[in-house]
Amino acid sequence: MSSFKGNALRGTFFLIFGLGWSVKYPLKYLRYSASYPHLEGKNMICICLYCLGMLAEQFVPDGPHMGLYSGGTYSWEKLTNWQYTTMYLFYGLSGIVDVLSYSPLKLSLGLDRLLLSVAMFTEGFLFCFHDYNNTALDQHLHSLLLIAIFGGALCALMEVFLRDHTILEFFRTSFFILQGSWFWQIGFVLSPPWGGPGWDQTDRGNFNFLTMCFFWHYAAALLVTAANSVFSYWYVVGRGLLENKRSD
Amino acid sequence: MSSFKGNALRGTFFLIFGLGWSVKYPLKYLRYSASYPHLEGKNMICICLYCLGMLAEQFVPDGPHMGLYSGGTYSWEKLTNWQYTTMYLFYGLSGIVDVLSYSPLKLSLGLDRLLLSVAMFTEGFLFCFHDYNNTALDQHLHSLLLIAIFGGALCALMEVFLRDHTILEFFRTSFFILQGSWFWQIGFVLSPPWGGPGWDQTDRGNFNFLTMCFFWHYAAALLVTAANSVFSYWYVVGRGLLENKRSD
Amino acid sequence: MSSFKGNALRGTFFLIFGLGWSVKYPLKYLRYSASYPHLEGKNMICICLYCLGMLAEQFVPDGPHMGLYSGGTYSWEKLTNWQYTTMYLFYGLSGIVDVLSYSPLKLSLGLDRLLLSVAMFTEGFLFCFHDYNNTALDQHLHSLLLIAIFGGALCALMEVFLRDHTILEFFRTSFFILQGSWFWQIGFVLSPPWGGPGWDQTDRGNFNFLTMCFFWHYAAALLVTAANSVFSYWYVVGRGLLENKRSD
Amino acid sequence: MSSFKGNALRGTFFLIFGLGWSVKYPLKYLRYSASYPHLEGKNMICICLYCLGMLAEQFVPDGPHMGLYSGGTYSWEKLTNWQYTTMYLFYGLSGIVDVLSYSPLKLSLGLDRLLLSVAMFTEGFLFCFHDYNNTALDQHLHSLLLIAIFGGALCALMEVFLRDHTILEFFRTSFFILQGSWFWQIGFVLSPPWGGPGWDQTDRGNFNFLTMCFFWHYAAALLVTAANSVFSYWYVVGRGLLENKRSD
Repeated sequence: MSSFKGNALRGTFFLIFGLGWSVKYPLKYLRYSASYPHLEGKNMICICLYCLGMLAEQFVPDGPHMGLYSGGTYSWEKLTNWQYTTMYLFYGLSGIVDVLSYSPLKLSLGLDRLLLSVAMFTEGFLFCFHDYNNTALDQHLHSLLLIAIFGGALCALMEVFLRDHTILEFFRTSFFILQGSWFWQIGFVLSPPWGGPGWDQTDRGNFNFLTMCFFWHYAAALLVTAANSVFSYWYVVGRGLLENKRSD
Repeated sequence: MSSFKGNALRGTFFLIFGLGWSVKYPLKYLRYSASYPHLEGKNMICICLYCLGMLAEQFVPDGPHMGLYSGGTYSWEKLTNWQYTTMYLFYGLSGIVDVLSYSPLKLSLGLDRLLLSVAMFTEGFLFCFHDYNNTALDQHLHSLLLIAIFGGALCALMEVFLRDHTILEFFRTSFFILQGSWFWQIGFVLSPPWGGPGWDQTDRGNFNFLTMCFFWHYAAALLVTAANSVFSYWYVVGRGLLENKRSD
Repeated sequence: MSSFKGNALRGTFFLIFGLGWSVKYPLKYLRYSASYPHLEGKNMICICLYCLGMLAEQFVPDGPHMGLYSGGTYSWEKLTNWQYTTMYLFYGLSGIVDVLSYSPLKLSLGLDRLLLSVAMFTEGFLFCFHDYNNTALDQHLHSLLLIAIFGGALCALMEVFLRDHTILEFFRTSFFILQGSWFWQIGFVLSPPWGGPGWDQTDRGNFNFLTMCFFWHYAAALLVTAANSVFSYWYVVGRGLLENKRSD
Repeated sequence: MSSFKGNALRGTFFLIFGLGWSVKYPLKYLRYSASYPHLEGKNMICICLYCLGMLAEQFVPDGPHMGLYSGGTYSWEKLTNWQYTTMYLFYGLSGIVDVLSYSPLKLSLGLDRLLLSVAMFTEGFLFCFHDYNNTALDQHLHSLLLIAIFGGALCALMEVFLRDHTILEFFRTSFFILQGSWFWQIGFVLSPPWGGPGWDQTDRGNFNFLTMCFFWHYAAALLVTAANSVFSYWYVVGRGLLENKRSD
């Protein structure tokens, strides 16, 4: 599933989280005294999403179907799918800790952000050490993605120590949206949905354009995050839902 | 516009900001209680500068004139100009946030510095991933520039958390002046204004000299920043304009 | 001793420390008011472990037996064993400072963590600069190990400034367990105990699988650390040993 | 002066500073209320040392004697000496700021440490970008040196924000002593004072041994720093010179 559908699935996955956070954090910021009985349920949905991701990577028609080593050919099977399964596994672990942090277990504050950071660093290192065997454009696209991944991972790591920091949450949200839209871009570049081959892997112009394009995606991600913040603010304030005005 | 004029324009752009800050921050520090009705106007001038930069990169005689892809030759057009346009775009975004942070919109404190940091990291990564196709001296000059860019970006990022820190502002200002003067140096080295070819791209002596030269530029940038601070101090104190003596 | 036994010894060494910490830190956290007359004794045991490690690296049958330079062949002798001896030496220094920090010498608070960090950075740089002469898989396995080493070193360094931070201690513990289990994995991959050659050094599938495998080890290390924390908590609370409930 | 004498001079220079600090900081820590009328004088001596270093690099018999470009051969002259001159220049700037920080000029607190950090980063980048034209052992020795340089630079940078932090001062001092002793080692390896060629540039054993040797130097540097701290403590306490017992 290194084809268009796989990248679209991953992109959608990150976009859901990014866009969800871009609404959740401004709301949290505006009504921080309200109780959240429904949030645990939302986190359960997240964990289901991670599980769906893992199952999709494993059981698509050309997936490994839980087979890791082929005794016949003495070779590893469908390692790319397994790597994405590993990626979803770590996001799943972070989701479980997220749910537990609302439970009466009294976890150390910040453990949820630490696990999120670990999940993103794991994703980043998996891409770093991935073997792109001579598909230079493929490698270039994922190198750019690393900026978004490690950027987000560093944000989450800093949030362990600087909890509920508005700027860090804004920054991390924008990196998630960037990651989501860039996975879609990767899908369109490497295996267009309308068939035909991907872009020319040897044309240096493609490399330069995609570098620039990545930062246009980021400008768009920043605008979307900002627009959602403003929209959430106006929605709450305009409808008189605001209970506690921010006091800093 | 990868010629002398383009580099001179970029150099001037960064020098204006660097030198402006080298006067602005000491003044802010000396008269921090004064109101600043005129600052918003100054920030508007900044945004105009960014727009001028973008227009200059696009509409110089040998620029892309907003054309990105040539259907005739099936190739990307004038990508270097587009990359500089992207750079100015991000500085423009940071300028807009800067203006908004003086408005009654109640932006999160530090968002202006975050966007400035994002603009500088974007500039740095654009140079990192740029394709210098075998012009080793060109690459060396821009590698040195990266020290100034990422140094400034890290300063701005730290200012998100340590706001109004004199040392960080001093440091960031010196990196901007360094960037400005180094763009001029790049212009002189790669395409001298008096015509003729640039410096020899294969002579290793040139590489070693320019490495050293970069740090001489930095020594000069530090001296200029320090001199402007002292000058601002004496100007305000000597003319009796000082209202609140610094109290730390 | 670059064979299975050596890697197993190193792995066991790190596992003992990691597993010990995974029990020690939750206990410290639960009963922080209790006196620790017996801890100095435990640290003495640590120092003995370091000394044993150094002796084992030197005096195994195919070890250097304290000989560093062979005058006969004009070449350095058994440098790999010497490098591991150096590694144990730095851990030994950190252990001595650890013991001294419980003495009435009034060491600066945090010096023990600094020395631990120095020991881990030393280990990391020794692997970085090691010469793997064309054994690419060997290098890949140790590159992955570097993530665990430098991760742990950064944790210890941050603990100099953020002392007794639960999350950092949890994180560092998990990196030590990861290091321990990965040394065992290295042993099994490069020189299986049941004889025969190690894995194919040229099959790219092995590289991709081991990258993924490393993160499975880390998921397991996280689970073990978490399980030990929960077990320690239940052991103390269930047996009524808890004196001071945590108050944050 | 890339010969033994040059490296010995640089080594001595860093050893003087490192050993001086290893005595100065414990004394400062013990008698922090005492006045320091004599310290400015000591800093003046430092500046003289920097000037002497610059003059020595320029006016040794085989030095450039202030000539930078040879019109005859159209090539740069003695760039290595010029690079060390640049290094001393930045240390000189940091020394001047150090003196000024004791003057009534009211410099921002931390500017002296910032300039020291800038000087060390400059030194590090000069070595990074240096052209070692195929002398791999030379490059390896200086790569190891970079650990000491950047380690010290990061310490000094953190001291801008965490002033008078005992651990950071201890750490920075040990890195300076390491740098000093390693310059001596470089001298002995590349151009032994008893004549004859340097070590074999192609023997991989030399590389592995020197990596290890670097960390032995560091273990020694740590021991020397610790011993000087203990000695200073006993000297002051034993002679009844202690006025204010430390109170943290």
